[in-house]
Amino acid sequence: MAYLTDRWYAAAWAEEIGSGPLARTILDQPVVFYRTGDGAPAALEDRCCHRGLPLSMGQVIGDDIRCGYHGLRFDTTGQCVDVPGQSTIPPGARVAFYPVVERHRMVWIWMGDPARADAATIPNLFWHDDPAWLSTGERIEVACDYRLMIDIQLDATHATFVHVSTLASGAIQETAPEVIRDDDTLHVRRWMLDVAPPPIWVSAGGFTGNVDRWILATYVPPSLCAFDIGAAVAGTGAPEGERDQGITNRTTHFMTPATATSTHYFWLFARNYGLEDEALSERVHTAIAETFHEDVAIVELQERSISTDPVGAQLDVNADRPTVQARRLLERLIAEDEAQGILQ
Amino acid sequence: MAYLTDRWYAAAWAEEIGSGPLARTILDQPVVFYRTGDGAPAALEDRCCHRGLPLSMGQVIGDDIRCGYHGLRFDTTGQCVDVPGQSTIPPGARVAFYPVVERHRMVWIWMGDPARADAATIPNLFWHDDPAWLSTGERIEVACDYRLMIDIQLDATHATFVHVSTLASGAIQETAPEVIRDDDTLHVRRWMLDVAPPPIWVSAGGFTGNVDRWILATYVPPSLCAFDIGAAVAGTGAPEGERDQGITNRTTHFMTPATATSTHYFWLFARNYGLEDEALSERVHTAIAETFHEDVAIVELQERSISTDPVGAQLDVNADRPTVQARRLLERLIAEDEAQGILQ
Amino acid sequence: MAYLTDRWYAAAWAEEIGSGPLARTILDQPVVFYRTGDGAPAALEDRCCHRGLPLSMGQVIGDDIRCGYHGLRFDTTGQCVDVPGQSTIPPGARVAFYPVVERHRMVWIWMGDPARADAATIPNLFWHDDPAWLSTGERIEVACDYRLMIDIQLDATHATFVHVSTLASGAIQETAPEVIRDDDTLHVRRWMLDVAPPPIWVSAGGFTGNVDRWILATYVPPSLCAFDIGAAVAGTGAPEGERDQGITNRTTHFMTPATATSTHYFWLFARNYGLEDEALSERVHTAIAETFHEDVAIVELQERSISTDPVGAQLDVNADRPTVQARRLLERLIAEDEAQGILQ
Repeated sequence: MAYLTDRWYAAAWAEEIGSGPLARTILDQPVVFYRTGDGAPAALEDRCCHRGLPLSMGQVIGDDIRCGYHGLRFDTTGQCVDVPGQSTIPPGARVAFYPVVERHRMVWIWMGDPARADAATIPNLFWHDDPAWLSTGERIEVACDYRLMIDIQLDATHATFVHVSTLASGAIQETAPEVIRDDDTLHVRRWMLDVAPPPIWVSAGGFTGNVDRWILATYVPPSLCAFDIGAAVAGTGAPEGERDQGITNRTTHFMTPATATSTHYFWLFARNYGLEDEALSERVHTAIAETFHEDVAIVELQERSISTDPVGAQLDVNADRPTVQARRLLERLIAEDEAQGILQ
Repeated sequence: MAYLTDRWYAAAWAEEIGSGPLARTILDQPVVFYRTGDGAPAALEDRCCHRGLPLSMGQVIGDDIRCGYHGLRFDTTGQCVDVPGQSTIPPGARVAFYPVVERHRMVWIWMGDPARADAATIPNLFWHDDPAWLSTGERIEVACDYRLMIDIQLDATHATFVHVSTLASGAIQETAPEVIRDDDTLHVRRWMLDVAPPPIWVSAGGFTGNVDRWILATYVPPSLCAFDIGAAVAGTGAPEGERDQGITNRTTHFMTPATATSTHYFWLFARNYGLEDEALSERVHTAIAETFHEDVAIVELQERSISTDPVGAQLDVNADRPTVQARRLLERLIAEDEAQGILQ
Repeated sequence: MAYLTDRWYAAAWAEEIGSGPLARTILDQPVVFYRTGDGAPAALEDRCCHRGLPLSMGQVIGDDIRCGYHGLRFDTTGQCVDVPGQSTIPPGARVAFYPVVERHRMVWIWMGDPARADAATIPNLFWHDDPAWLSTGERIEVACDYRLMIDIQLDATHATFVHVSTLASGAIQETAPEVIRDDDTLHVRRWMLDVAPPPIWVSAGGFTGNVDRWILATYVPPSLCAFDIGAAVAGTGAPEGERDQGITNRTTHFMTPATATSTHYFWLFARNYGLEDEALSERVHTAIAETFHEDVAIVELQERSISTDPVGAQLDVNADRPTVQARRLLERLIAEDEAQGILQ
């Protein structure tokens, strides 16, 4: 599968990378993550250039990692710096290295040419670590093409059928979304004014009457979907409203391709209200996790079904406008990078 | 694999299809079964024409089934009748449908052109539901080409080696069967007169001396083997006998191809004696189930062995006459349907 | 994969072949082992020439094995000698047979042309059954190319990194081995004089000071590595020494290919000291088994890693001299046999 390589991908939650090595496949490549002496993350090709053992079987020593078979030692640039039993390093003794950055409680990886890696292009996900927000999250290994996960994020209409006990609301189908392409980002905006709140909002926001709701999705190719989702007392939440009689959640969904048919799915849910309310935190985590696992069940079955008939025709309906546009945007970017020789 | 499509296949025991959807692969096709409002069975392609989710993940609503992802709704002809969020149905919004008939306690499916489906050609298996007969049965998922299952049914000689504790009897090998082709049906008839009864018959029929035995098999391509098997006091059971001092069992074996290497095996065992005797029912079920599971163990090992050397020569022996003729009959029918353009 | 076929392979520990049939895949061929009436081992193709059932599902009868499906009976040369239900044997009714020899507590098999099998070429492993030696061993099914197992045997340097708690010793890396090719056998000899003994030797030999150590490996293609490993009080163990103040172990490693990516690994460890000391026997077995299972963990990960990038370049280092020479020897022998038409 052709992936966009000159992009930052979420590789791990920061806390997943501890003192020992962590093995993870990213865009079909075996990668080993570890932390150097000063705690900075590092990422190398997870295959020794000598006899192929995964370096993740080895040991972190200072800023280096040492192979668990014959003891070859590599620094954070992938250069071999020690071969036990001899004093010289053979030419070409190196493994690939990948630029990594720790930001917003995640470790980001750049799978393309390291020379082009620019940390300034990592998306701003302030709600991950701003103290005004409280967040919870998870990593789920999902057995599907990452694009099916993007589809389900950008498709608000499935809530009625998939999330029957939590997000179900007739209002979503009745409201056509605004779909706006702004440079290389896709915005899908849904305003639902003066509507009944779905069950999950009632319990979270304590609403007794109708609300203004918004679901403002942003798709940043290849793999990030971020949402600004909220509800306020009807009349105070509309685009021009103050939102001060409402509550806002932000969710991040990062679908990092492991292989063509498996995905590292990172979700994070943040809120800017009731930060001290631990019972609410627990309730919210449980409900949200259940909801996102419902998505996972759908896309895994979809993947299996599609895999038995990959050329099967797919019919589009009106509600597919956001997902169809997102696919086109991704395909355009991949074609552009291919034309420039960036993709192999 | 080329299957005969213009035939009725046993798809499920009637009671397997309840109020919710049932997913089952038949001749490599994913099929969803459900019951409409009046209880009639229905069968559709188990893959939504929109985004490929199996419809069996969805919900039965009246006579229709609704996809569990975006809510597209399909009637029993596979026509999409509702797309949430829009008032028109896109042209081509349909999935395949398959004619189904409930008869003889089974649901039958027609995988070929629906226009040619004629319920009159469903075989008469009266012993399944005639009150003069009491039956028991099972469905077993078997990891083999369905034709290996047909072979073992039509091959009476294996009883001595496979069913050592139940059906073993030297009499079978010593008796060459009559093999008769009658139109598109194969009959394999074995009469064993004045012989010692094998263990299972002794316990079922209470015989103390020799018996006349018969094993009258009928093979109806592609997948049905039915047996009339009995024993009577020697001298009363021969072809021209009355059988009134004997007992008769009838068994049905339906080997419906799931894929080229997996088979839905339905067996039914019926008797016309001791109908009130529950202890006998239990004993018979246990012994028969054990016997048929012995067959399954053989064919699954055979499949694995053959798969490692698919072109390996196979030697024929005299006892193979029934199975070789059955294979030829099946191949002839497949070739005929191919010549007529019935098979894809 | 091209295997050397005109060689004896270790097929099983003698005690693995009992009264019933034993199925084992050797060089990609399904083989059934059994013992004839006088206890001699026999080996046939494990696939009936009639309908393909593995003969290992059948029954041993005297010197023959009888298929568990239709009862065809084969003698130790693979000739069919009985077909139930008929008095003649069809021409060509036979399965392949393989010469087998029981020696040194193992059953050896010859997978090439039986006419060329000569038991005199079975290697002399006297420590397996000489009463002056006490041995212990195991069979491990390893998920790798058998050549990776040979590499790790001939590579003494990995002990420092893989066997940290048992064999680790800086002395090994500091000592370049002698590598000698003697006809078709490779000898890798390491003498480490006046060095600190590694932990496992201290516990086994009760040394308190420095020792002379030796690791004398012999590789007999395709699949045998045998070691003479010892330590003696410094000054008494060197090549010209008496070894009488030391202890000697001998290990055998037989890596018999099952398939291109799976190996039957037989290891045996023998010692010529403390034969009555049962506590020592137990301790040695535990430590050695742990050590060899560490090797297995390495090569299985290596196999998986290599399989994802089979053409990936492999860098050689100085310490690879023994393993590189062993590979070249094996490749030369395979090429020679191919040139002579011995390999298919």
